[in-house]
Amino acid sequence: MDLFTSQHAGLSALFAPRSIAVVGASSNAQKIGGIPVDYQRRFGFGGAVYPVNPKADRIQDLPAWPSLRAIGQPVDLAILAVPAPLVDGAFDDAVAAGVKGVVLFSSGFAEIGADGAAAQARLGARARAAGVRLIGPNCLGFMNVARHVYATFSPAPNVGRVQPGRIGLVSQSGAFGAYAYAMARERGVGLSLWATTGNEADVQFADCLAWLAQDPGTDVIMGYIEGCRDGPRLRAALALAQAAGKPVVMVKVGSTALGAQAAASHTAALAGDDAVYDAVFRRYGVLRARTLTEFFDLAHSAAVAGRPRDRSIGLFTLSGGVGALMADDACAQGLDVRPLSTAAQDRLRDWVPFAAPRNPVDITGQVTNDMTLMERSARVMLDDQRFASWLGFLAAAGASDAFWPVLRSLVAALREAYPDTLLAISTLLSPARRAELEAMRCLVFADPSDGIRTIAALAGLPAPGAAVAAAAPPRGTPVVLAPGALSEPAALALLADAGVPVVAYRVVHGADEAAAAAEALGGAVALKVVSADIAHKSDVGGVALRLQGAAQVRAAFERTRVSARAALPGARLDGALVARMVDGAGVECIAGVHRDPVFGPILMFGLGGIHVETLRDVALRPLPLAPGDAQAMLRELRGAAILDGARGRPPVDRDALAATLQALADFALRAGDTLASAEINPLIARPAGEGGCVAVDALVVGSAA
Amino acid sequence: MDLFTSQHAGLSALFAPRSIAVVGASSNAQKIGGIPVDYQRRFGFGGAVYPVNPKADRIQDLPAWPSLRAIGQPVDLAILAVPAPLVDGAFDDAVAAGVKGVVLFSSGFAEIGADGAAAQARLGARARAAGVRLIGPNCLGFMNVARHVYATFSPAPNVGRVQPGRIGLVSQSGAFGAYAYAMARERGVGLSLWATTGNEADVQFADCLAWLAQDPGTDVIMGYIEGCRDGPRLRAALALAQAAGKPVVMVKVGSTALGAQAAASHTAALAGDDAVYDAVFRRYGVLRARTLTEFFDLAHSAAVAGRPRDRSIGLFTLSGGVGALMADDACAQGLDVRPLSTAAQDRLRDWVPFAAPRNPVDITGQVTNDMTLMERSARVMLDDQRFASWLGFLAAAGASDAFWPVLRSLVAALREAYPDTLLAISTLLSPARRAELEAMRCLVFADPSDGIRTIAALAGLPAPGAAVAAAAPPRGTPVVLAPGALSEPAALALLADAGVPVVAYRVVHGADEAAAAAEALGGAVALKVVSADIAHKSDVGGVALRLQGAAQVRAAFERTRVSARAALPGARLDGALVARMVDGAGVECIAGVHRDPVFGPILMFGLGGIHVETLRDVALRPLPLAPGDAQAMLRELRGAAILDGARGRPPVDRDALAATLQALADFALRAGDTLASAEINPLIARPAGEGGCVAVDALVVGSAA
Repeated sequence: MDLFTSQHAGLSALFAPRSIAVVGASSNAQKIGGIPVDYQRRFGFGGAVYPVNPKADRIQDLPAWPSLRAIGQPVDLAILAVPAPLVDGAFDDAVAAGVKGVVLFSSGFAEIGADGAAAQARLGARARAAGVRLIGPNCLGFMNVARHVYATFSPAPNVGRVQPGRIGLVSQSGAFGAYAYAMARERGVGLSLWATTGNEADVQFADCLAWLAQDPGTDVIMGYIEGCRDGPRLRAALALAQAAGKPVVMVKVGSTALGAQAAASHTAALAGDDAVYDAVFRRYGVLRARTLTEFFDLAHSAAVAGRPRDRSIGLFTLSGGVGALMADDACAQGLDVRPLSTAAQDRLRDWVPFAAPRNPVDITGQVTNDMTLMERSARVMLDDQRFASWLGFLAAAGASDAFWPVLRSLVAALREAYPDTLLAISTLLSPARRAELEAMRCLVFADPSDGIRTIAALAGLPAPGAAVAAAAPPRGTPVVLAPGALSEPAALALLADAGVPVVAYRVVHGADEAAAAAEALGGAVALKVVSADIAHKSDVGGVALRLQGAAQVRAAFERTRVSARAALPGARLDGALVARMVDGAGVECIAGVHRDPVFGPILMFGLGGIHVETLRDVALRPLPLAPGDAQAMLRELRGAAILDGARGRPPVDRDALAATLQALADFALRAGDTLASAEINPLIARPAGEGGCVAVDALVVGSAA
Repeated sequence: MDLFTSQHAGLSALFAPRSIAVVGASSNAQKIGGIPVDYQRRFGFGGAVYPVNPKADRIQDLPAWPSLRAIGQPVDLAILAVPAPLVDGAFDDAVAAGVKGVVLFSSGFAEIGADGAAAQARLGARARAAGVRLIGPNCLGFMNVARHVYATFSPAPNVGRVQPGRIGLVSQSGAFGAYAYAMARERGVGLSLWATTGNEADVQFADCLAWLAQDPGTDVIMGYIEGCRDGPRLRAALALAQAAGKPVVMVKVGSTALGAQAAASHTAALAGDDAVYDAVFRRYGVLRARTLTEFFDLAHSAAVAGRPRDRSIGLFTLSGGVGALMADDACAQGLDVRPLSTAAQDRLRDWVPFAAPRNPVDITGQVTNDMTLMERSARVMLDDQRFASWLGFLAAAGASDAFWPVLRSLVAALREAYPDTLLAISTLLSPARRAELEAMRCLVFADPSDGIRTIAALAGLPAPGAAVAAAAPPRGTPVVLAPGALSEPAALALLADAGVPVVAYRVVHGADEAAAAAEALGGAVALKVVSADIAHKSDVGGVALRLQGAAQVRAAFERTRVSARAALPGARLDGALVARMVDGAGVECIAGVHRDPVFGPILMFGLGGIHVETLRDVALRPLPLAPGDAQAMLRELRGAAILDGARGRPPVDRDALAATLQALADFALRAGDTLASAEINPLIARPAGEGGCVAVDALVVGSAA
């Protein structure tokens, strides 16, 4: 947070400047250097505007200056619209003139190759050294809609401007940002700040997000990201937004490498990048939009209505068919469509004998004979069940002039009587009427399914105060791992020490000792060669299972050594591990930690066998875990029902599993950068009262030095 | 088909009448009996209109008649807008007057209880006896938009009329139909016929669908259904539409019982109703829409663009970010985003060095400097790969007046050069401009994700000629089953005879015979008591597995009899079944047939164990199977990858599985109504060359007499 607090002032000078200079200013208002001068003059910017161009006296009716230094007045923001070779000189000038922020449109940097990347890196370093905030290069700049700052050469505002509002939008891509701007305009969505970050030599996507999290003019944040340069910085920014209670809606595409490469990311490995982003978003309650429509629906709705108290919803309809459709949708989205009490149902049926009074409430076409039925029914519903959300499908009524006053007074009455209920109406409405209902914090949808989907997403926003319960620091002392894979007994010992329940085992160095260990452990045992040089012991015949009695154990000790030696002559054998067989009554799971290059250690949990390997059904979380994360991971699996006791078995002990995941997460944090990966496979989950869960095999790998 | 051919003429007189009478006509154009008179007069109906009302001489400036008979001119259609008690008399009058079709608005029939249902049934029988087609009661009627027939009292056309078009829309629900009418109007979707079927005393949803399938004015059919009264009739209508090559888009809600009951259908059993509808829709290539937006997107797009040749798609973008988003979407939807050849890629890169030339093709912002790049790039893409579909994301350009002529000529040029390519543009466009591109058979989407989703759905429509390859009649002679469960050996013998590969087994009646059978079979065996009275043999200790050698087999024979007798003293034991153990190397599957009350025999296939029981991952098909259905069922499972060889195993023999499903389907058809259900569980699927698949246990139940 300190990082952002200190950066905040610098970004404020950039995003809310009192004076703006345009370097490379042009008299032609269609050119890259002419557009910002034109916009600043026409669109109501209140501060000073200084065109800089050594070859002109006046530009677009303003006095022109030969350099930034020559202006002799404070310049908060300099927009550099000059070719790449002139950028260094212009930047020198900006630093000398005491400019606080720079927007750099110019292309010709990292996107053209190594030389450009090096020039860009130098520029970023110079900006940081000089304390100047730099946005770009290769970007479309930004617009502070509320303050009429148009530091962009996008033609989009010329077609029509977005209205001021309380949604901030940041995009790494200029073209995407421009389309989003146009869509916001067409849909009547108001914006506070619109920013594109381009190559991000200095200011990153995460910095803009953090600034918006602290901006009093912004309630909701929309982000478009292709790839994150600094995972911890993005996480800190998301935490800031969460703490501020500001919903974040994000579109993330496959990768920065476009097109087919982006497509290819879908076939990536188990814990592929995109799944990690998903996990990070989930950690901070980010709503991930999969389409542009969803992007705007979610952000606009969050700005209009905020988060419902919980997932309960009352559904009201004038059409039984649409009621059933809404019920179908609401169930699929996990909303709580609880029925009205019998008393409330009776009351509705008194008014309309053929009404469906349960929930959805279908008051039928009777409403055309008695318009008051709508408000009366809604009040019965909300008084009876205190639904967090109420959605009314009023068919095409909204398009009728005769009905509009009834609809408006219905919403006004419900808003007054139920101030903390999320209200939504599905009907066809003109934009002006829609805006009137939205001003009463009532959402409006033409398609009731959009309403259900949006309300369900808003109900998934973090509860107020969720961010306060931050993750506790890991328990226990630091762990330092040597590079490379640990032997299995070493890995098991380390995990056992970290609080992971592991199978009972002994390390032995001879056949007699193996037989004695088996007897001490009791029952059937498994025997595996121990060698730090052998990653896959069963592939070299180094594993024997279900051994009963001393003779079988002795024979297995000798046989596995011979097999392993034959397969890998150079491998050092360090005895064998004898472990009690865990009977097959539990559910086979897998748990692990791997280090993501962007976001650091990621915890993984899944069901074993085909679920992980073939169906790729795993839950991921960045570390440290938030309270409740481990339990939530168990619920997230598509196959979660298997933990509830498939095939007649009682449910497994979820608390024991969650505690094991927490122990593994703490272990990974204590090992820090010295841990490359850790995997428990299988982790057998058993019903409560049958021993909780137990790690049967483990692989721990230290990072290369 | 004969059914529909003979009905067709009757429905044509109903839907395309030359003369219309309104019984219960009112001078008040706001009333149920006044609205149709008003609509017929104002909206351009070309034929005669006869208001019928014994208490008036003139109605709305037309001469009024005391009865239908009194008119003395042919009346094709009579609209009955009278209270329920007067319906019988009005219907008598209609029959006597030789009316061909009746629309019955009146409520007070099946929806009010048993008496109403009886009256409705009588009315339906009388209509059929008299050869009069009757739509309703309790319906909103219909509109033949092309012929200006407004046989409805819905206020929707008063707000604004839908334009004539080539999409027919049928809805069981009046309220849903009215909303759909309003949405069609707002979205500029043109309709041929709009019909609501209400209580369906005579004309059913399926009849309207069949009529539209044969109507030369209709290309695409939209349907909203709550519940089907006659499964074979609906299937025949869908087959008719498929044979006519007309896409059908359908919304089906949970059930006719509204609200919470509809919601409850989501938690129904394994092969619950809704899943059966899904299977029937899949069988006839029906596109099932899950939202109103999808309903219109799909139907309108099908009408504009039809079906693409295959799933290949070329993606073009001015924004790399949106290109990645489109690639993500296209992959998720199973479209074939194949890359351009190296030569084509080189050519694009010659023009724009920083272009992404693979597919998606991102030609970058360079297009603003050279507008011809768009058409040139599209031609390179389409010449190189002959994509069935081409989707271009042109950002906000469509909203710019300067760009519009470029866009229009781009589409015109591509349409001329590639007449059989599905063209689609994603940009922001006014309705008028959108219509202009649609007239060139080019789809337009504001959200590129909607475009991808819609194109993928259209690619799923049945290929031309698919309907011609109708299902072959079942092979073999009829089978007649006695009521009740067959014994396991009887079931296995019957299935083996039907072509299902079954495990090697013997039926034995003594311990020595059991031991001899085991020796003859070889290897380990299973032994199970045989009894038609015991459905779950393992629950009564009647099963012993993995028996080796004569002693174990003898002991098991005695033990299972004792256990079964103890558990079920009254059960008749009929010896034991000794079967060769099938080793655990295969994939455990389950296959079965059950009789759906609406659609008859339904074939089911799934993976065994948790996949069926906990994850409910099954594929269903109505019988008879269409060619390719059995293989398609294997692909449809969420866990289909397991058949491809999970955990290092080779893929299972899909051909053997498909042949077994076909054999089971044929068996079910040969058994006809005498079969209640058949289930093979487990059906072990093994790799090709390892014996195909084999039924290990089977349960066949004959229908109660």
